Amino acid sequence: MDIAAAMDRAISASREAMGISSPNPPVGAVILAADGTVAGIGATRPPGGPHAEVMALRAAGEAARGGTAIVTLEPCNHTGRTGPCAQALVEAGVAEVHYAVSDPNPVAAGGADTLRAAGVRVTGGVAAHDAENGPLRPWLTRQRLGRPHVTAKIASGIDGRIAAPDGTSQWITGPRARDHAHSQRARIDAIVIGTGTALADNPTLTARTADGTLYPHQPARVVLGHRDLPADARLREPVGGPLIQVDSHDPADVLAALPDALWVLVEGGPSILGAFFAAGLVDEVDAYVAPLVLGAGRSSVEIPGVTTLDGGLRFSTRSVTRLGEDILVTLARPSTTSRDN
Amino acid sequence: MDIAAAMDRAISASREAMGISSPNPPVGAVILAADGTVAGIGATRPPGGPHAEVMALRAAGEAARGGTAIVTLEPCNHTGRTGPCAQALVEAGVAEVHYAVSDPNPVAAGGADTLRAAGVRVTGGVAAHDAENGPLRPWLTRQRLGRPHVTAKIASGIDGRIAAPDGTSQWITGPRARDHAHSQRARIDAIVIGTGTALADNPTLTARTADGTLYPHQPARVVLGHRDLPADARLREPVGGPLIQVDSHDPADVLAALPDALWVLVEGGPSILGAFFAAGLVDEVDAYVAPLVLGAGRSSVEIPGVTTLDGGLRFSTRSVTRLGEDILVTLARPSTTSRDN
Ligand SMILES: NC(=O)c1ccc[n+]([C@@H]2O[C@H](COP(=O)([O-])OP(=O)(O)OC[C@H]3O[C@@H](n4cnc5c(N)ncnc54)[C@H](OP(=O)(O)O)[C@@H]3O)[C@@H](O)[C@H]2O)c1
Ligand SMILES: NC(=O)c1ccc[n+]([C@@H]2O[C@H](COP(=O)([O-])OP(=O)(O)OC[C@H]3O[C@@H](n4cnc5c(N)ncnc54)[C@H](OP(=O)(O)O)[C@@H]3O)[C@@H](O)[C@H]2O)c1
Repeated sequence: MDIAAAMDRAISASREAMGISSPNPPVGAVILAADGTVAGIGATRPPGGPHAEVMALRAAGEAARGGTAIVTLEPCNHTGRTGPCAQALVEAGVAEVHYAVSDPNPVAAGGADTLRAAGVRVTGGVAAHDAENGPLRPWLTRQRLGRPHVTAKIASGIDGRIAAPDGTSQWITGPRARDHAHSQRARIDAIVIGTGTALADNPTLTARTADGTLYPHQPARVVLGHRDLPADARLREPVGGPLIQVDSHDPADVLAALPDALWVLVEGGPSILGAFFAAGLVDEVDAYVAPLVLGAGRSSVEIPGVTTLDGGLRFSTRSVTRLGEDILVTLARPSTTSRDN
Repeated sequence: MDIAAAMDRAISASREAMGISSPNPPVGAVILAADGTVAGIGATRPPGGPHAEVMALRAAGEAARGGTAIVTLEPCNHTGRTGPCAQALVEAGVAEVHYAVSDPNPVAAGGADTLRAAGVRVTGGVAAHDAENGPLRPWLTRQRLGRPHVTAKIASGIDGRIAAPDGTSQWITGPRARDHAHSQRARIDAIVIGTGTALADNPTLTARTADGTLYPHQPARVVLGHRDLPADARLREPVGGPLIQVDSHDPADVLAALPDALWVLVEGGPSILGAFFAAGLVDEVDAYVAPLVLGAGRSSVEIPGVTTLDGGLRFSTRSVTRLGEDILVTLARPSTTSRDN
């Protein structure tokens, strides 16, 4: 397997660690034996557990000697709850290391130097664009801004409506869009809604497969607003992630209440989405758009005080995907978007 | 050139006749000489002028003898302002005819039989799906329903807003989306807006290229509503298609005022779009969606009386196209949509 293909595998492997590795980055690693065959694949385990490189080295065993390690992030250099990965790679006798993204965290950085000092050939920046815009993106946002990566989720008709005037909103999108949204929930650290949605829809906010099975990882469920939830609210049931009530109207308070979270999905309603957009706290938008014209009812986002077109928020289109009859449009901040995909 | 490739060329050629051929169908024809090379290509000329087959035969001259004609619609059999095309093909000595769509019009149908009776080999239904869902679609709607094909055009942010609260709506979408919308105008028979948009935006509703040049074909400009336009309204300038004021609130009156039109584009505002949707008069939706969150202002479609989700109108997603930063989502009635594209 060549380095590019191995990096693809490492990125795929790292996707499995999303939501589980937090606050550590979800990293993937592939060890190729000296003859180029895949000897081991690993991804970051939950905090306190081994990092991706160590998982891959364990799978590879003696086959790592003289081999090549392909890692989505520069191997760490510091001894936290686990030993430094750079050291583990040296000890396993790996001859070459290719990584995608340099570690921006000064405490952990320097792994590449340690490896080189030990005589390992090191290449950084391999498929960095894919890795940065993939599973590492939320962690990179946290490193840069000191807060989680925030995705606003919208599910609307083509006219932007998310509910009919009587409040009915099930189902606007179809089963494939809903499955996709649930698989996203299984990769994030927290879902955020407002008390309005919590009281109107009494949702569970769990991550479920199409047949209703719970995914192994369940995100924290955050409700923003002053009102309390009734004693029998389904959010109080113990099936999903922890329930966190944030008695505030400030979206920044939600993020502060989630110090270990890398990735947060704001699912609505329109007031809460509007508050996150207005505060400049939305990094990405996942808009599921159904071929439905409702013609009345509330729109997906309500921002108080916008009067003119210049008051709107411009994003950049990252991708468009068909999901059965629906489409998923993903938007990102203009500066961080990829060129064309 | 093989028959499938020739039919593709014929369909492309017919696109040039859209808007110009009305009320006749925009048809394309390719004549292959006996050795399989392209001898002539033609498309329907304006009413009174030759049909596509005659244009292609003229281009081919003697090369048509023993050759093959590929036509998007069954050659006509009746003598109107022009002679029957079936007869022209026989006289030119064409040996084979392949057509896509059978003529549903009883007056013109029978061309295939005439050809067969004259000893020509005839195949119908070639790439019929492409032709039906392409340039012939509006004409087929008119044959089936006795009214033009109606496309609702929307240009909105991802939250469905088409204007800010102060009425500003320029520009929500970018240059590539606007160019695309103008090239659509150059293929249709009429643009429809409401008096609200006419008075608020004072538009010209002409079809222009990116540099401002007028396309050769300009659609009629229809304004629906009771109010009159001021004497200095730009719609009264003679640059575009004819101005038609329909003093009514009934969308059916617009269609009745356009007896020769095959294809009508309803461009808004929200009230007029809502009236066409509510009347069940929308066959397709062209939604240009910008990566903009406005958060306030009017939504693209307003239908009075919708209270619950079941009151919405379901379409089927036909295609999704990137146009620079924007996307174009086309929807069609569920029954007439193509399977997957
Ligand atoms: N189609 C979809 O994808 C989707 C998704 C979600 C919701 N929905 C629909 O959305 C509707 C509910 O929307 P909503 O806007 O009423 O509810 P919401 O946005 O979920 O919650 C609004 C409430 O949150 C509190 N709040 C906290 N911070 C706020 C802030 N900065 N600004 C304003 N309010 C803030 C306020 O309540 P306190 O008084 O308690 O502070 C406010 O009434 C429901 O019909 C639901 O079905 C649809
Ligand atoms: N972004 C875009 O693509 C786009 C496109 C178009 C418009 N716009 C915006 O839309 C806004 C105008 O929207 P609008 O809804 O006020 O105007 P509209 O839909 O263009 O026109 C509404 C007017 O049409 C008449 N009318 C005719 N039939 C009607 C019916 N069945 N139901 C209701 N009214 C009927 C009524 O006026 P009478 O009293 O005269 O009968 C009514 O006030 C402007 O801000 C414009 O900029 C945006």
